[in-house]
Amino acid sequence: MAVVESRPYPEHCSLGEAAEILLEAFAARELRIREMSPKDAVGLVFAEDITSRRNVPHYTASAVDGYAVCSKSTAVATAATPVALESGNYSWVNTGMPLTGFDAVVMVEDTSIDIDASGGSGRLIVSRGVTQGENVRAVGEDVMHGQMLACVGDAVTPALVSLLLCAGVKTVSVFERPRTLFIPTGNEIVAHNAWFSGGKIEAGFVVDSNSAYAKSLFERWGYSLDVGPILPDDPEIISEAVARGVLGYDLVIVSAGSAKGSRDHSEKIFSKLGKMLFRYVRMKPGRPAMAADINGTPVLCSPGFPMSCAVTLWSLAYPLLKMMSGERSEPAERYIKEAISSSETIKASLMSNHSSPAGMTEWLRVKCAEVEGRTLCWQMSAGASVLWALAESDGIAVLPESSLELPRGMEVTIHITRRIDLSHRLLFQGSDDPAVGLLVSMVKKSGAELVIRAVGSMGGLAALSRDDAHFAAAHLLDLSDGTYNTSYIKQFANGRNWHRKLIFHREQGIIAAPGNPKKIIGFEDLTSGDVMFENRQPGAGTRVLLDYMLAEHGLNSSDVPGYDRISITHLEAANKVASGVADAALGIKAAADALGLDFISVAQEPYELVFSERFDEHPTASALFEALDSDEWKSEVMRMGGYLMPVSG
Amino acid sequence: MAVVESRPYPEHCSLGEAAEILLEAFAARELRIREMSPKDAVGLVFAEDITSRRNVPHYTASAVDGYAVCSKSTAVATAATPVALESGNYSWVNTGMPLTGFDAVVMVEDTSIDIDASGGSGRLIVSRGVTQGENVRAVGEDVMHGQMLACVGDAVTPALVSLLLCAGVKTVSVFERPRTLFIPTGNEIVAHNAWFSGGKIEAGFVVDSNSAYAKSLFERWGYSLDVGPILPDDPEIISEAVARGVLGYDLVIVSAGSAKGSRDHSEKIFSKLGKMLFRYVRMKPGRPAMAADINGTPVLCSPGFPMSCAVTLWSLAYPLLKMMSGERSEPAERYIKEAISSSETIKASLMSNHSSPAGMTEWLRVKCAEVEGRTLCWQMSAGASVLWALAESDGIAVLPESSLELPRGMEVTIHITRRIDLSHRLLFQGSDDPAVGLLVSMVKKSGAELVIRAVGSMGGLAALSRDDAHFAAAHLLDLSDGTYNTSYIKQFANGRNWHRKLIFHREQGIIAAPGNPKKIIGFEDLTSGDVMFENRQPGAGTRVLLDYMLAEHGLNSSDVPGYDRISITHLEAANKVASGVADAALGIKAAADALGLDFISVAQEPYELVFSERFDEHPTASALFEALDSDEWKSEVMRMGGYLMPVSG
Repeated sequence: MAVVESRPYPEHCSLGEAAEILLEAFAARELRIREMSPKDAVGLVFAEDITSRRNVPHYTASAVDGYAVCSKSTAVATAATPVALESGNYSWVNTGMPLTGFDAVVMVEDTSIDIDASGGSGRLIVSRGVTQGENVRAVGEDVMHGQMLACVGDAVTPALVSLLLCAGVKTVSVFERPRTLFIPTGNEIVAHNAWFSGGKIEAGFVVDSNSAYAKSLFERWGYSLDVGPILPDDPEIISEAVARGVLGYDLVIVSAGSAKGSRDHSEKIFSKLGKMLFRYVRMKPGRPAMAADINGTPVLCSPGFPMSCAVTLWSLAYPLLKMMSGERSEPAERYIKEAISSSETIKASLMSNHSSPAGMTEWLRVKCAEVEGRTLCWQMSAGASVLWALAESDGIAVLPESSLELPRGMEVTIHITRRIDLSHRLLFQGSDDPAVGLLVSMVKKSGAELVIRAVGSMGGLAALSRDDAHFAAAHLLDLSDGTYNTSYIKQFANGRNWHRKLIFHREQGIIAAPGNPKKIIGFEDLTSGDVMFENRQPGAGTRVLLDYMLAEHGLNSSDVPGYDRISITHLEAANKVASGVADAALGIKAAADALGLDFISVAQEPYELVFSERFDEHPTASALFEALDSDEWKSEVMRMGGYLMPVSG
Repeated sequence: MAVVESRPYPEHCSLGEAAEILLEAFAARELRIREMSPKDAVGLVFAEDITSRRNVPHYTASAVDGYAVCSKSTAVATAATPVALESGNYSWVNTGMPLTGFDAVVMVEDTSIDIDASGGSGRLIVSRGVTQGENVRAVGEDVMHGQMLACVGDAVTPALVSLLLCAGVKTVSVFERPRTLFIPTGNEIVAHNAWFSGGKIEAGFVVDSNSAYAKSLFERWGYSLDVGPILPDDPEIISEAVARGVLGYDLVIVSAGSAKGSRDHSEKIFSKLGKMLFRYVRMKPGRPAMAADINGTPVLCSPGFPMSCAVTLWSLAYPLLKMMSGERSEPAERYIKEAISSSETIKASLMSNHSSPAGMTEWLRVKCAEVEGRTLCWQMSAGASVLWALAESDGIAVLPESSLELPRGMEVTIHITRRIDLSHRLLFQGSDDPAVGLLVSMVKKSGAELVIRAVGSMGGLAALSRDDAHFAAAHLLDLSDGTYNTSYIKQFANGRNWHRKLIFHREQGIIAAPGNPKKIIGFEDLTSGDVMFENRQPGAGTRVLLDYMLAEHGLNSSDVPGYDRISITHLEAANKVASGVADAALGIKAAADALGLDFISVAQEPYELVFSERFDEHPTASALFEALDSDEWKSEVMRMGGYLMPVSG
């Protein structure tokens, strides 16, 4: 896709183009140089070529533990014809000791000491001759005086620190780390301290999380970041701060104000103060990112949504920082891996179809699991506003512009960003339940890991039949006979031998706003037309239950406003009610209780785990069963309310 | 290989066994916990499960820039049948603004404002209806109050820092980083300040480089390291320091004293103070490493050679530190990659045969290049005492115990530890010459990289014929007709079209100690029996020259003491003379001058670069030729002495 030229500067450029424009614009910027001891410079970059001031070693040293000798005196020595040296004609040397008056070293294992009758100091019996210089470290064996040890652009490493020390290099000139100013903006932004001051935070206000993220990220990168005061959406004020910033910093980042809202002023400000370099990068998220050259200093505007801010820092700020640290430029791929601190790169196949926007680089936050020898991955939330997905993801898959429709099973490349051991990870897919969520940390304590993917009861059974999960859970009501799960399991297992384990019964009911303002008492009220219902996704046991109940009451789903609206979990549905977006939802009592909502009980249903007979061969399956049997878990579940534990025995 | 049980503790265990013994011994050690703000805890590990104290967002917010409306009022709106809303029935909202009195948001692109005749505030024309909750972020959409955000053992990441901030988590309990004490020992060890005090360092003394390496390494790992004063090889004193150390630290590392020299006391000290866990690890280098449990604190002894010290820290100290930081244990492979800060792992084929010691893990410091689409690697010095090889290597290949004879061309896995761009790297193999060495930093300035491997003239031509080099250099005298290179190139090129470029003539001669104590005036003297000669490797042009000269003088190589001794470079050979290990060597004047040695000139020879006709297709070939033509390089070469530049024209 070519760059759109509707402006005096490129708009909608590709990520590659944007990074290139940025690096080119400031390639000639002068870098500050400082002189310091190598040991204080680890991670910095040499601004000069470094040569050795010494020979290392600076003397002729023994390379082994043994006896220094004159090689000639041992010339004929063999095991069969050993040579005896009088004391004074040899001397013990430890590794590294200097050779004085001798020209070779006999290894201790090739000698023995023969104490003579007079009890004198003894003779050295040598059973293997040595030639001149044998087992000797020559002067300069490691490095020689004048030898080149490092060049401009090389990074200072621990190995170089010790080498330079040995080589007598006391100080080196290195490039100073660039200094960055981060300017948070937005009338709605609240500072950390205010956020924690205890006072209630009004609706419409959010904490300044981007500054905290940026600061931590820079810290992990080894760069300092100064965070300015939060500025209101006032062009004058922001303008002044940026103008001041470019004088004292090597990089200025304005947070938010990049989009087209009535309060987004960055483009105007940048154009006025300097030269816009580009606006809009064809990536998702992060599209509204922009950059300018103001008095020769790079200025970025990162979009306000947390994930958009993150990708802007990774893909635009990081390469710029590296270049301004004196490092030679790198393949873009490398920068992204470094910027997100990826420890390894793996390939995994998508668990479901994914369509990537045309002509855009897409940043996927993905989670992985290994089932039946296949490495699987799935996208977590795609929402740019969702921080959780970034914090919880295993890594980032960067889908190139070229990718469009990615079918299930297609392999994608993932840069892993957290410690994972897939062999110890259990993947649960199935009916959502907060009680199952409680298992995560208990399982973790025993060295295993439980990953939950709420896909509804049928989704879970389907996943299990595709070997896309280690175990599933279902509470599926058979509309024909009112039994639970049996018929569904039979259908999905399709001849395979699946085990089922009842872990509890739970109470389902209609969840309504506190005080039940709409006076909902039964399913009839859902069709009154005045109640907005929040439904669950097709295949969710709770949706099946709803259909069953509607049918039983002779009601028609098409008469239920909001029947087509979908929440994926009980808590999400309940939350829609709590936040007034919906008036009612069907869900479990635990969810209603958690949010202090009204609950009209309608049924009690069995909740069963389902897994293949091979499941207990999994290295950490036992960790799950132990957690399920633990009193700790059971009591926590009972505390939530709405659960009934099976009589054990 | 089974562990040898000649002692009350395992000896000669494999690296895997050693690490396992170590981790098991201290798995139960209690960790210190501290409460702090998440933003100060990046890189630390949670000591508690963290749940959200808030719903994020905590209010119903607009998810887009647009107009907040009552969904009902837009129900029928389409492009064909737009709906007009009077002012007051809609209100502009930026992304993130709260919804009050409205239940949905129309995106700005689906609207237009129709200013009425009276010039009033105007009506909103909606061309696409919205349903209740559309374009609205529900309360808790990101995370919900009470939701689990992180578990014990998770690392604190920048993403979590900002998430916890939003979630109202002010402080978290994390595990404190373990504290380590490093105790340098050895009568021969000199402290940094003394090393730089200007005074001459006596033979037999070496600077304390291991402490500097360890401190920088720990710093890069994110751990602090206290370095104690350098202790003499006195069991009492070291014993006392260790006993004190284990009281105040989580890990104590004694540097050196691990071998069998007369000054190696660590094993006795450890056994006396506590319980030895193992001694001797089947790895090369690093074999003499040992570990003990002293009052429940881990104590390591790292061998004194720099490379041995390094591998001990990587393979034993690092996993221990990670465990004592509260992290869940990892596959060993991961630890090594992390410990050496490897950014990526590649496969490359060995350029020459390598035999790895039986039953031992071997740490190879390797250099890489890419020629004709093949990624090649070769081992740099194997010497445990050689720091240069670690500093200069591209990465580490860890050869498992099982590897024995690795034939040329075999693929090995390399953990890359420096920024390399193989596509821009030129590999030179051939005759060694310091003037060529000068090209390295000049080539680097133009974004390319020149890697030099001195293998002698014939070695270079052979490498070129195997496509194991981008270019070679030779000064090979044809014994039959006294011409240089032509016949050799013809033979090795074997029909292919190779180019040759004369870059200078250089003076060869006999290098002797200052003042020429052995009174060497010609080749006859080398056969006097009283002169120890230092020869060059077979295939080196200089060795060919020697053979030619001996023949010319009717001398027999078998009459030359040291004829079979091999140095790989001119400087190395000259150095053998300078350090008295040899009396004479044949080499270039520049080498003699560099070390202030006597030089008896015997010949002037052409030094030519040789490369295939495809060479100039290489992206950075031009960088080499520019450097060769530069006055900067030419004048530096002339300054070295013994060189004659071709008359350019």
